[in-house]
Amino acid sequence: MKIAVDAMGGDYAPLEIVFGAVRAAKKYECEIVLVGDEPAIRKVLEHEPDWEKLGISIVHASQVIGMDEHPADAVRTKKDASVVVATRLVKDGICDAVLSAGSTGAAVTAAQLILRRIKGIGRPTIATPMPTPKGVTLLLDSGANVDSKPVHLVQSGLMGSLYAQYVFGVKEPRVGLLNIGEEETKGNEQAKATYQLLKNMHTIRFAGNAEGRDVPKGNFDVVICDGFVGNVVLKFAEGLAKTILKLIKEAVKNGGLFAKLGALLLMPTLKKLGKRLDVTEYGGAPLLGVNGCVIISHGSSNAKSICSAIGVAVDYVKGDVLAHIRDSLAKEEILTNDGEKN
Amino acid sequence: MKIAVDAMGGDYAPLEIVFGAVRAAKKYECEIVLVGDEPAIRKVLEHEPDWEKLGISIVHASQVIGMDEHPADAVRTKKDASVVVATRLVKDGICDAVLSAGSTGAAVTAAQLILRRIKGIGRPTIATPMPTPKGVTLLLDSGANVDSKPVHLVQSGLMGSLYAQYVFGVKEPRVGLLNIGEEETKGNEQAKATYQLLKNMHTIRFAGNAEGRDVPKGNFDVVICDGFVGNVVLKFAEGLAKTILKLIKEAVKNGGLFAKLGALLLMPTLKKLGKRLDVTEYGGAPLLGVNGCVIISHGSSNAKSICSAIGVAVDYVKGDVLAHIRDSLAKEEILTNDGEKN
Repeated sequence: MKIAVDAMGGDYAPLEIVFGAVRAAKKYECEIVLVGDEPAIRKVLEHEPDWEKLGISIVHASQVIGMDEHPADAVRTKKDASVVVATRLVKDGICDAVLSAGSTGAAVTAAQLILRRIKGIGRPTIATPMPTPKGVTLLLDSGANVDSKPVHLVQSGLMGSLYAQYVFGVKEPRVGLLNIGEEETKGNEQAKATYQLLKNMHTIRFAGNAEGRDVPKGNFDVVICDGFVGNVVLKFAEGLAKTILKLIKEAVKNGGLFAKLGALLLMPTLKKLGKRLDVTEYGGAPLLGVNGCVIISHGSSNAKSICSAIGVAVDYVKGDVLAHIRDSLAKEEILTNDGEKN
Repeated sequence: MKIAVDAMGGDYAPLEIVFGAVRAAKKYECEIVLVGDEPAIRKVLEHEPDWEKLGISIVHASQVIGMDEHPADAVRTKKDASVVVATRLVKDGICDAVLSAGSTGAAVTAAQLILRRIKGIGRPTIATPMPTPKGVTLLLDSGANVDSKPVHLVQSGLMGSLYAQYVFGVKEPRVGLLNIGEEETKGNEQAKATYQLLKNMHTIRFAGNAEGRDVPKGNFDVVICDGFVGNVVLKFAEGLAKTILKLIKEAVKNGGLFAKLGALLLMPTLKKLGKRLDVTEYGGAPLLGVNGCVIISHGSSNAKSICSAIGVAVDYVKGDVLAHIRDSLAKEEILTNDGEKN
């Protein structure tokens, strides 16, 4: 198995990306192709003289797509951008998966233009794994599309369910529709129409509407929503977690000796808990719906999260998620037809 | 000042509602009219023999609207429901404000049917105050309407801004549009169209798009969004906070002696922090856009939050928010016209 990694994408690229790749090469049974500015990558690899023996190789790419560039324009004009070259390696059958922590828009656009959508899928979606007390909840779409039609949400549900099944090993994943109430009649036009389509599907286990509070509680394995809502919710969660942590730190700092001692004693326990809830333990969110395994990592990814994300790619390929999506689409006839029209 | 309180609405009604009213009567300069089943209310008031001297009175209402009833049907058929009678007290000029912790849908419907919308306002919205490290952020709409038109979101912005100004005392509140990116071109059709309207307003300080993470960080004083998104985000926050707390408690419980001692030492500091972030400190969210002060409280409200919510009603009336909304609508000509069409 060979994973193409965009070595130039991300806030700490190429340093953390390359170190993450080295970690992953030691941890997983896969080869890694680092794509980007060869001299810069080689410079980082000087710290790991045995990199070639680990199964790491370099493919040079002379350009980089910045976070502030218009994704579609950049992908079309920068033919030698690292994310474009890396995605093409999958298209050409040289690699089995591609991973980028650079501009999400650019990675999604490159995937759509180069790998193309799976036949029958109207829009690819980003599936973000969220740690919960009960395991992992997959939230999709978390930002690839807005103003999605109900059929797109249903296709997300199907793909997310297969992903949870074949990558996380969840038997019959409970799929929920993010909504503002439990009842079938609740929600906006999009949610109400989506509910009716989900009710009639036979390839997934639709478990009804999921309210906002059900997501962090882990009451569903897969939660589907429009990319606008998914993106807002994920960024909100990120902001809330950071804010709480910051406030606790400040409170301890200003809290006198007892508070400081208490924090010290409690630290190992909280660290263990933090690890359990740490999103970097997953490191990457798959883009589902294109012909190839594409993993999107957070811009702030460090070596640890890149390594985890490569693990996600390995699991995705091993789980043969693509074949399962294609098989299931063939079984849901209405969906396939609607999907092509949309 | 007289506040009508729906004594029968809420998970712990009438007990906690009545106790909350007693607290408020002692704390604020206002009279309170408890509306609901008189014998039941009198029974609770036995614990406070001096209730009449505190300025508390009772208006009997023989019916109650349950959480599972269809709001519009229930309000129309149950003419003697506590929330209906309480709202009518405001319509008739007997009370200055009404408060309910019962079915939100019923309270909103009663307000719309009995008090009517302010001339020019297309849809009333619920404005939920969220504690942040920088103070309070008002999130609206938090669930009164879904599929809102851009003009409704803009009206929310105007009303929220006035509320922040005259109730929270924020000079020139920063109003943000909840969106998936900072740039003007980001978002779904609704957000993009709303941005264009907001840009041209002269009665509010539009500070651009707010991303999900900006809300808990307190980067804006007022954040506007569709009720679908607002409701999902608020319930998500509630679920996340509860989940984190539960996990910390479990971790401490299973964490050995040091962890337990640490938690004990840290407790006073965390409690102080918790108080600062406690939503029950606000207790109630105003329904903006109807001809009267309507405060919606959480179904799980206890005496403390009901008392705070009555405080919110007092501030609302003192701030003369209604008059300010009417004045500002008159100044934003385009808005008023569009509002009436919608």
